[in-house]
Amino acid sequence: MVSDPVDESESHPTEGLDEIVHQRARLGILSLVHEARRVEFGYLLKTLGLTGGNLSQHLRVLEEASLIKVEKGVQGRRPRTWISITPIGRRALLREIRALRAIVDRVDRLTERKE
Amino acid sequence: MVSDPVDESESHPTEGLDEIVHQRARLGILSLVHEARRVEFGYLLKTLGLTGGNLSQHLRVLEEASLIKVEKGVQGRRPRTWISITPIGRRALLREIRALRAIVDRVDRLTERKE
Repeated sequence: MVSDPVDESESHPTEGLDEIVHQRARLGILSLVHEARRVEFGYLLKTLGLTGGNLSQHLRVLEEASLIKVEKGVQGRRPRTWISITPIGRRALLREIRALRAIVDRVDRLTERKE
Repeated sequence: MVSDPVDESESHPTEGLDEIVHQRARLGILSLVHEARRVEFGYLLKTLGLTGGNLSQHLRVLEEASLIKVEKGVQGRRPRTWISITPIGRRALLREIRALRAIVDRVDRLTERKE
């Protein structure tokens, strides 16, 4: 090793990341549904800049993992899809956020040392 | 919207994530090679808990995107593979880290508000 790693004995914080939660679009969905009691499909679409098909696919993955709940309804005359986070989803998101913070802090620490 | 988002007008920070850099194993590789002048294949293998095939595949993706440089050599009598980050790779990692920090801070802010 021609290197100076922070600590060779600890496993790297990326090992704490869960692929279901970590994936870019799904991380966006989970953090948005964490912010509100429930959010509408169109809001996620607009805020995350996804296509409808893509968003539906990611919602399905999250729903199958019990991380979100999807409810169909009608508001006025328009069909609506509402998404909310489950307690399992909230725990998974907060675990991901802890791992991300460890990664960010570690990179920042090293970057400062080099500057 | 039955919700209270932080700011509806801004796009979500997950839009700033690049799938090549954001993927769990590749984020681990890039942050480890950012820490040292160069690292050995076996060190990445051990630290990230990946299989050899899996690690090789991710290194290929990163090398094709010009984010890392891979060099084969011999140390003593043993063949070695050394990996180093390129200036493009370092910029991409630091961009990812900035986006991750925005996500982490936003979730933390909301979580505190709810507690």
